[in-house]
Amino acid sequence: MTHNVAILGASGYTGAELVRLIAQHPNIDIKALSGERKAGMAMADVFPHLRHMDLPILCKIDEIDFSQIDLCFCALPHKTSQEVIAALPKDLKIVDLSADFRLRDPDEYEKWYGNKHAALAQQGEAVYGLTEFYRDEIRGARLVAGTGCNAATGQFALRPLISAGVIDLDEIILDLKCAVSGAGRSLKENLLHAELSEGYNAYAIGSTHRHLGEFDQEFSKLAGRPVKVQFTPHLMPVNRGILATVYVKGDAQVIHDTLAVAYADEPFLQVLPFGEAPSTHHVRGSNYCHIGVAADRIEGRAIVFAALDNLTKGSSGQALQNANLMLGEKEEEGLTMAPLFP
Amino acid sequence: MTHNVAILGASGYTGAELVRLIAQHPNIDIKALSGERKAGMAMADVFPHLRHMDLPILCKIDEIDFSQIDLCFCALPHKTSQEVIAALPKDLKIVDLSADFRLRDPDEYEKWYGNKHAALAQQGEAVYGLTEFYRDEIRGARLVAGTGCNAATGQFALRPLISAGVIDLDEIILDLKCAVSGAGRSLKENLLHAELSEGYNAYAIGSTHRHLGEFDQEFSKLAGRPVKVQFTPHLMPVNRGILATVYVKGDAQVIHDTLAVAYADEPFLQVLPFGEAPSTHHVRGSNYCHIGVAADRIEGRAIVFAALDNLTKGSSGQALQNANLMLGEKEEEGLTMAPLFP
Amino acid sequence: MTHNVAILGASGYTGAELVRLIAQHPNIDIKALSGERKAGMAMADVFPHLRHMDLPILCKIDEIDFSQIDLCFCALPHKTSQEVIAALPKDLKIVDLSADFRLRDPDEYEKWYGNKHAALAQQGEAVYGLTEFYRDEIRGARLVAGTGCNAATGQFALRPLISAGVIDLDEIILDLKCAVSGAGRSLKENLLHAELSEGYNAYAIGSTHRHLGEFDQEFSKLAGRPVKVQFTPHLMPVNRGILATVYVKGDAQVIHDTLAVAYADEPFLQVLPFGEAPSTHHVRGSNYCHIGVAADRIEGRAIVFAALDNLTKGSSGQALQNANLMLGEKEEEGLTMAPLFP
Amino acid sequence: MTHNVAILGASGYTGAELVRLIAQHPNIDIKALSGERKAGMAMADVFPHLRHMDLPILCKIDEIDFSQIDLCFCALPHKTSQEVIAALPKDLKIVDLSADFRLRDPDEYEKWYGNKHAALAQQGEAVYGLTEFYRDEIRGARLVAGTGCNAATGQFALRPLISAGVIDLDEIILDLKCAVSGAGRSLKENLLHAELSEGYNAYAIGSTHRHLGEFDQEFSKLAGRPVKVQFTPHLMPVNRGILATVYVKGDAQVIHDTLAVAYADEPFLQVLPFGEAPSTHHVRGSNYCHIGVAADRIEGRAIVFAALDNLTKGSSGQALQNANLMLGEKEEEGLTMAPLFP
Repeated sequence: MTHNVAILGASGYTGAELVRLIAQHPNIDIKALSGERKAGMAMADVFPHLRHMDLPILCKIDEIDFSQIDLCFCALPHKTSQEVIAALPKDLKIVDLSADFRLRDPDEYEKWYGNKHAALAQQGEAVYGLTEFYRDEIRGARLVAGTGCNAATGQFALRPLISAGVIDLDEIILDLKCAVSGAGRSLKENLLHAELSEGYNAYAIGSTHRHLGEFDQEFSKLAGRPVKVQFTPHLMPVNRGILATVYVKGDAQVIHDTLAVAYADEPFLQVLPFGEAPSTHHVRGSNYCHIGVAADRIEGRAIVFAALDNLTKGSSGQALQNANLMLGEKEEEGLTMAPLFP
Repeated sequence: MTHNVAILGASGYTGAELVRLIAQHPNIDIKALSGERKAGMAMADVFPHLRHMDLPILCKIDEIDFSQIDLCFCALPHKTSQEVIAALPKDLKIVDLSADFRLRDPDEYEKWYGNKHAALAQQGEAVYGLTEFYRDEIRGARLVAGTGCNAATGQFALRPLISAGVIDLDEIILDLKCAVSGAGRSLKENLLHAELSEGYNAYAIGSTHRHLGEFDQEFSKLAGRPVKVQFTPHLMPVNRGILATVYVKGDAQVIHDTLAVAYADEPFLQVLPFGEAPSTHHVRGSNYCHIGVAADRIEGRAIVFAALDNLTKGSSGQALQNANLMLGEKEEEGLTMAPLFP
Repeated sequence: MTHNVAILGASGYTGAELVRLIAQHPNIDIKALSGERKAGMAMADVFPHLRHMDLPILCKIDEIDFSQIDLCFCALPHKTSQEVIAALPKDLKIVDLSADFRLRDPDEYEKWYGNKHAALAQQGEAVYGLTEFYRDEIRGARLVAGTGCNAATGQFALRPLISAGVIDLDEIILDLKCAVSGAGRSLKENLLHAELSEGYNAYAIGSTHRHLGEFDQEFSKLAGRPVKVQFTPHLMPVNRGILATVYVKGDAQVIHDTLAVAYADEPFLQVLPFGEAPSTHHVRGSNYCHIGVAADRIEGRAIVFAALDNLTKGSSGQALQNANLMLGEKEEEGLTMAPLFP
Repeated sequence: MTHNVAILGASGYTGAELVRLIAQHPNIDIKALSGERKAGMAMADVFPHLRHMDLPILCKIDEIDFSQIDLCFCALPHKTSQEVIAALPKDLKIVDLSADFRLRDPDEYEKWYGNKHAALAQQGEAVYGLTEFYRDEIRGARLVAGTGCNAATGQFALRPLISAGVIDLDEIILDLKCAVSGAGRSLKENLLHAELSEGYNAYAIGSTHRHLGEFDQEFSKLAGRPVKVQFTPHLMPVNRGILATVYVKGDAQVIHDTLAVAYADEPFLQVLPFGEAPSTHHVRGSNYCHIGVAADRIEGRAIVFAALDNLTKGSSGQALQNANLMLGEKEEEGLTMAPLFP
């Protein structure tokens, strides 16, 4: 059985990544691609790497006949997404890739994003899209909120450890390194090749990054009490990839075993042998996440590493994984391509 | 029906790329992976990006039971390849990725490679593996010689033009830009990140690069008279990709039309609209080749561009494309993944 | 004796490069830095790498007291530059880094730049700033027009050959590779790290790049008859550097000797031993230009390579070299820093 | 007065960097350059970026007449350095760039480097070369031991804080990012462009990196009691630069003020305004170190950042700074070049 999908916001990187992934999926057809400012253009002109594909012309959202669509991927910017989704048919299955429906508490949303939420009804029904931990809810959901790419990475490293109570909840430090495509295709000076290449710097310092809203929500829920982590993202001069280096207090071997057991049956979460560290180069372009654990020389301290591709497992791959569940497809369908190396 | 294959030389980049591609193929199983110096190791330890796959342990070639193998990919270094292939079962289907069986004339081989050929019998039966131009021979071949990656790129730009007689055969200049993975995983100073990054230089200057042997052989055969091109390769600080900028004399519009007609039904050879130039970034990780043509301001001169991924369409993708023909599979099977961008 | 200078357009890359170079000059003081949109900001906030320097606050041009300025560097965009310079004091020494005063024929200017020239009087007195070939005129000039960075590279490779009549003037092909900083600090999609890194493509194809106006003017003047070259620039995923690969017809050894003799006493133009090719990595951040010559396998054909740093020798270094002549300083003053490698 | 120097190990990156820097120094002449395996070669052939300089031919160490040398830079590999230095004239001033004389306790040396020290006499007299903190000792020293590049970065971030007692000594985490040139010009697979570019990973995980020996020695000495930090280095796909992200417990404003006061008169240590983070791109190729401090959202926690160029301030620049003191030159001589950006 073939499912028809639309991708809203197809002129951005996550939209193009969805097209790339869905092209490998045997049972999904792309019926509509929207791009407000590029409406009327062929995808080949916006993304020449998709030139060989037979794709719909980019259109405006209000030109789409949603009655023919089984599921809609929404890859629009924050704020825009909530406005658009509020106006979509109420029974349309939606996977949203923006930040708009990740936080359950409207006050938390306003605190981190600076505006009142414009689609509270939809926010109320949204399911948090971290597939490996919300499978059942996602299967039955109408609206799934894709997680932040940094937020996904940190949670893969930490959730089983918080659940199992094997680390000190007040002493978690996430030093995160993310690739430039995480900032999208926007024209900002710091994203220019000349500014970024050969450079390396932290940003959103002092734990002010918006993905902290997700960490706070999810980790506190898991722990049954407030958990606040420190989180410092850094911008790497590479196009794809996130590496989280997480400093925790606890027994390193127990931590490794906890993760290994928790992810033993997970197709996309690969726990490395104890003492090995993953590289972003080894997950690039794939839906896999590599996780490593090492003991520090100081007794009772450990480092947990998680590496994934921000555009795939961190965003569009996750979105397709969730769509598979919502559509009754096999969860891994279209997502098992090996990483591109070198 | 499932075909069993072996990959000899699986610890190099083209070997790993074969594994990545075959993982997408529904009807091919990898039964053996050889790596003389790394025999006994798991592929995950040699190429951590393949960690999620269930692959044979690396072994020595003489440990492989070839009676169970339908087709053997040979991704060994030059010279080694001919020695190994000479000793393989005489009825085993082989796709060789080395330079050893590309040149039909043993004297030409010796001239470009500096040693006498050690497997003349096999050389005699080898079919040149530029799929789009040797399909019928490849279908019936036992031994197919994969082309040089630079040689493939230049031929995609030029073959139809030489056949059609629309360019001056004595005035062809190939200015080629190739990525570092073309040099393999060998430990050479000029391949270090610190030496290559932010740099850019020509090498094998003065038309001394070995792939000229292939150009000479193929272009002269097509033209029915000797054709010699100028060829200057440059090393780019990128990991994958080749861009050929070919300066020719002829009518640009005729040249474009000739290529567009010649490749109209080719799934992997995409001719861009007249006046557009391709980028290596838009074919990376894929089996597609993008071709562009522009008129120069000087009447009667044109520039032809061809861009492909040296490890995929230039090497391992081509090898799988040929294997598909030899095994009776659909030619595109396992090869239609979209490029990875960004 | 100390010379006071102003730099107009100090918030761009060539402006910042001027500051970096002048910091090494014992006899030049920076008295004013302009940046219309960033007026009021400290240079440390616009270019944090200059944080350690004691520099004037960025101001608007009309806030500068030019009576205190001995020489003014003008690093403004095209068109803006001619308007600003037309309004500056008529006796102020000026080194312009824009394209506005490079072409002597106003019709040629209009043809390549698309607008009527707005400062014809100044255009009439401007001296073309290719230092090594216009030293005497530059010494006495009031207004010097810095050359295009690509134009400089091509001319270093070709001028002595055209003067000496050792190459075929109708068969010159310049295949040029330039770094991204040549496009300035402007916010364009194709200059984003995510778009450029791992990519490689030609632009301004078909010999349509504006620097051809300079080639036509200078080469025709040298030859005493019209000379038209083919010129295809490519964008490299590196920040600094230009490599010109020039295909010519002539005797390679004679070509090498001609260049070696012509540049024997030039401090910044280094001719490599016959048969060697330069790399952009080996001139980065310096005012040096490396030039190589090789014979092709086809008799009577040669390849000339020239590598320089587009921001230094191709632009701001050249500007300081010219200013030194105009101010009676030693030509090399402040410019002999070794390249940064790796 | 001119000082004559020799550079031992001039065919490595730190050796070449010394040549680049000394070229800017008015009072130092390079009299000898050694390179055992490349003896007899011109530096231009080993490092083409130094082609324009008039330099001695590379020789073997035993060919150098040390009676003519005022100071010897020793840029040899670990272990080799101690053997060579033990055999040099006992009154020769030496700046060693290797790890051999950094640790005062021979047992600590053996613990971190795995071999018994072969030059205990020299080790006993060596002064630790972190210029800003050992000026007086360095001025009078015969043998100065250059610090590790990572060790320098971490100490610039932390020493004044430990001295002032404003941070918790048992809760210091150094997450460090270093460029590939820190590993030298050695042929290792993980240093290849194809392996490193687009990748990012930690190494020496679990606080096993040798530079911890220096941290332990120096921080414990400062604190008057044992101090052990956690230290996780990561390899960045860039050529130059180190960024240390240091997680500490203490009052962020007090921490910033302490660093600002401590470095107020230091020409090379630049403390950024409170809340700003430095980038490696803004110190590249220079002797400057940029330091930033931010408060975390969690009360009582702060992040300290330090960025420097591993080859300059982290190694060869530091060495020249020390040599200036030992030779009675102005400390900054030859070292005030602005960073290269972009």
